[in-house]
Amino acid sequence: MSTYLPPLKDMRFVLNELAGMERVAQLPGCEEATPDVVEAILDEAAKFAAGVLAPLNHSGDREGAHFDAQLADKAVTMPAGFKAAYWQFVDTGWNALPGNPEYGGQGLPKLVSAAVQEMWKAANMAFSLCPMLTLGAADALERFGTEVQKQSYLANMVSGKWTGTMNLTEPQAGSDLAAIRARAVPVGDGTYRIFGQKIFITYGEHDFTENIVHLVLARTPDAPEGVKGISLFVVPKFLVNADGSLGARNDVQCVSLEHKLGIHASPTCVMSYGEAGGALGTLVGQENEGLKLMFVMMNTARFAVGMEGLALAERATQQAVSYARDRVQGRAVEGSAASVAIIHHPDVRRMLMLMRCKVEAMRALAYTVAAAHDAAACHADAGERARNQVFVDLMIPVVKGWCTETGVEVASLAVQVHGGMGYMEETGVAQLLRDARITTIYEGTTGIQANDLIGRKIARDGGAAIRVLIAQMRGVQGDAQSCAAIAARLGAGIDALERAVDYIVAKYATEVRTVALGAVPFLHLLGIVSGGWLMARAALAAQVQIAAGDVDPFYPAKIITAQFFAEHVLVAADGLADEVIAGGGSGLALGEAQF
Amino acid sequence: MSTYLPPLKDMRFVLNELAGMERVAQLPGCEEATPDVVEAILDEAAKFAAGVLAPLNHSGDREGAHFDAQLADKAVTMPAGFKAAYWQFVDTGWNALPGNPEYGGQGLPKLVSAAVQEMWKAANMAFSLCPMLTLGAADALERFGTEVQKQSYLANMVSGKWTGTMNLTEPQAGSDLAAIRARAVPVGDGTYRIFGQKIFITYGEHDFTENIVHLVLARTPDAPEGVKGISLFVVPKFLVNADGSLGARNDVQCVSLEHKLGIHASPTCVMSYGEAGGALGTLVGQENEGLKLMFVMMNTARFAVGMEGLALAERATQQAVSYARDRVQGRAVEGSAASVAIIHHPDVRRMLMLMRCKVEAMRALAYTVAAAHDAAACHADAGERARNQVFVDLMIPVVKGWCTETGVEVASLAVQVHGGMGYMEETGVAQLLRDARITTIYEGTTGIQANDLIGRKIARDGGAAIRVLIAQMRGVQGDAQSCAAIAARLGAGIDALERAVDYIVAKYATEVRTVALGAVPFLHLLGIVSGGWLMARAALAAQVQIAAGDVDPFYPAKIITAQFFAEHVLVAADGLADEVIAGGGSGLALGEAQF
Repeated sequence: MSTYLPPLKDMRFVLNELAGMERVAQLPGCEEATPDVVEAILDEAAKFAAGVLAPLNHSGDREGAHFDAQLADKAVTMPAGFKAAYWQFVDTGWNALPGNPEYGGQGLPKLVSAAVQEMWKAANMAFSLCPMLTLGAADALERFGTEVQKQSYLANMVSGKWTGTMNLTEPQAGSDLAAIRARAVPVGDGTYRIFGQKIFITYGEHDFTENIVHLVLARTPDAPEGVKGISLFVVPKFLVNADGSLGARNDVQCVSLEHKLGIHASPTCVMSYGEAGGALGTLVGQENEGLKLMFVMMNTARFAVGMEGLALAERATQQAVSYARDRVQGRAVEGSAASVAIIHHPDVRRMLMLMRCKVEAMRALAYTVAAAHDAAACHADAGERARNQVFVDLMIPVVKGWCTETGVEVASLAVQVHGGMGYMEETGVAQLLRDARITTIYEGTTGIQANDLIGRKIARDGGAAIRVLIAQMRGVQGDAQSCAAIAARLGAGIDALERAVDYIVAKYATEVRTVALGAVPFLHLLGIVSGGWLMARAALAAQVQIAAGDVDPFYPAKIITAQFFAEHVLVAADGLADEVIAGGGSGLALGEAQF
Repeated sequence: MSTYLPPLKDMRFVLNELAGMERVAQLPGCEEATPDVVEAILDEAAKFAAGVLAPLNHSGDREGAHFDAQLADKAVTMPAGFKAAYWQFVDTGWNALPGNPEYGGQGLPKLVSAAVQEMWKAANMAFSLCPMLTLGAADALERFGTEVQKQSYLANMVSGKWTGTMNLTEPQAGSDLAAIRARAVPVGDGTYRIFGQKIFITYGEHDFTENIVHLVLARTPDAPEGVKGISLFVVPKFLVNADGSLGARNDVQCVSLEHKLGIHASPTCVMSYGEAGGALGTLVGQENEGLKLMFVMMNTARFAVGMEGLALAERATQQAVSYARDRVQGRAVEGSAASVAIIHHPDVRRMLMLMRCKVEAMRALAYTVAAAHDAAACHADAGERARNQVFVDLMIPVVKGWCTETGVEVASLAVQVHGGMGYMEETGVAQLLRDARITTIYEGTTGIQANDLIGRKIARDGGAAIRVLIAQMRGVQGDAQSCAAIAARLGAGIDALERAVDYIVAKYATEVRTVALGAVPFLHLLGIVSGGWLMARAALAAQVQIAAGDVDPFYPAKIITAQFFAEHVLVAADGLADEVIAGGGSGLALGEAQF
């Protein structure tokens, strides 16, 4: 059976040596994140993740969330143990960890909460979606809500006493929110009546809490068509009285659950608004600005999904290593008297190294972006804030797109390491693949991330932001001459990246369809070269420790892993650049009817 | 809901223009495969696949096979509609199509039956496993059985009146059959009593037929240890009397079904032999030669599983194209007044082209190998037979390994094209991914294929066989100068392949672990370069048709697809060769405890 132990050693290394925890803790507002506090949080979170959440992952998948229309007010029953775990999570204060101190949160830097998030996601992704959605909704209310809305909802959402949801998707409006049809009719007293159906609503209903706070995109009667006519409303399951007590049941119902490939313990609801006269809601922000508000929160949501890719890959790697050590099968290829554990077989070793080096590269990337987010939000110097924000904006589609695609790949490798047992659901590793498979789709598919990357993040500023990053990468390449194998591959990877960037910048304005055909290969290219850059930094940091006399085998292992990344992952860079530059000749030539 | 229409046009093109159907039909013993006969078979098989088997694919997955220990003699109930479909399949004569005419089969060339097999597998992979296993077992009995065994079983197995199974795996003996423990104790009258447990037995029990013929690997009391002490036995569910009627129920039981990631309608059984005194069986071939017999049948089984990768990829591509045409979502990237079907979006187009070109390349490869198999079996000239057999032996691990890895990738792309709907099981596309995921594991994992490839097929003859293939590829590269983009990429791909072959041949004897670390990257490299070679041949054949005045848009589309393969798949060749040649420095350096 699958277990999970948070990889505290690598987490600390990445936090301290690559992401600059020390600098983050000196930012205005982040001072509470002292080394002692961070240590204590990581240790306790690790215990909770491994001891409480991880053991429910497989049983939650097998049992799933269940829908029963007869249970009008709690139509969704969560799998055994989930409700108790939720309240243990809330009572221990974990839900409030990343929240605003004004509403009871602990307001820790994103860098610290990212490491903690990784643990929840790896331990139990289906469970982790609930606090993730709640904090996303709370974030929206905090930034854009009225004082009354904040007083009504925020403290209970930050603590976790109530949960939150995001209601965007409708059957005809998935990636394209312009097609939203849900209606919001003004009552005349400042409130609205909401009508319509929403699909794919994560934790739209459950039996954890007495109230659920829905954020809903809908159109007012006079709204313009398309994306400029969408407004955001807060619609609680139970109305909230002025004194904070619960009032009447609102006209919103979960009418069914989806039957999904994975994340079975996360209820994915079809929500119906206004079947009995209209669900009462109030406007968040300005009318017709709903999409703008969503965009503001997009970086947070996309970062969080990217972390899911990393987290599932970490757990899959742990499970594969454990199986490969235990499973004895076949003689050694070089000859052996007896059968050997399969970790000894070179191809199993290759798969484990591939998984390992990708996990470490993803962690390095995600935490580096989290640290930049903290600097963008808190740095005393406006120029530093702006510089960091540009880096965050550039890299968010890479964290989301590359880490999720890589997460699926790593989970699939974990199945492969298990051989026939990997295909049996009892082993639990197939669940990781099924769970991971949603991550490249929701919060914007990989294609949408890649289009955002080449359009808004590369072409729009003529490549300025990415050239700053490339210069940083070149610096590391220069520093890494002591690791010749790594420096050479990193140099070739950066060359390929520059070639692709030049092409995109030159052609985007005039041949957008052609350039867009190479968007996803470019996203992969930037992902692996960024990974190579940070793994080279990791190798250099390890060399420093070794030179200082540290004999921990962690450091030589880090150098070997960085070299493997260069020799087995970075080597794909040139081929990816070729794909980008191949252009649209063959890709766009067929008529639609010819398929 | 997923549908499937056999791609008869591309099948015919590959049969005739690439695999040489005409030459195959002139081989001694293959003369019945006239153009009319082949046409009629393909048309009728297409109707049966699309009309009878394909509609049961999704319902079979949802319902699954069920086990009930109370139903002693038919402990496994198949999903609704499967039994009726099976008998329609048998009664129409489809089961007998590839069988030996001596026992009621039609004895068609493998090239024709490969195309038909592709249809069954794409229409309903879980169903198709039953006739595949039956014919594999019949093949073994035909080659190695006694006259009595042949008379007892073969006619009923070829017709499909009875089914067959292969019982190899035990909990401690998966990839490594040396570890088999099942026992066979001689009774003294020429029969044996079999004892032991076998796992992962496909169609080990079901409600289709009155009898099931199990082929079982077991050890006799004095057998040497390891692979040299394994014998093969035939153990029927019901004993067969001398007059062909059914006798006593044998001491073999299905004791449970596995809960798997996919192929839910295919019962994967735990079989128990000898719980009540021993299951009666008779020896097939010589004592202690069981593994040798299995090896003889390995090419057939591995080819068949490779075809599953192709077949599922074809169906996944059809479903993705259909969804991409119907689903309207988002404006065009170059601007559009209204929303467009997603097939218009460049990244969706890229995914569909990737799926399409890989499917066509896999089909070209698999059918080419099937035709070589026919020549190896039937050619009048011994040299031609030997030459073709060498090619078949070389390419079987590529058909098995590359087509299955690619099948999983294409099925996953089909999920991606569907966006959020792809994650919902009702859409049916996730099933294709779940079903495909076993193909890289059973009948020898990709790692095992790759080790076979670099060891027995490349290093053992010092690269002789593959250099013959490379020379053929060079010829096509030369002919393809009229398609400059294709010729250049093919040339670079062949260069990369040669580089990797030189390395393997030079180092295998002295650094086998290092070389084995690159085995799977090498398998992928040979897969894509072989695909590029055959797609170049396809483009040339299409040019000939166009030059001859044929205005069918199929031909220009084939050239475009071949170019896309060169520009988006073959471009990975150099990176793969780099991985092979990187060697084991970083891959083998970590101690097992360091993971």
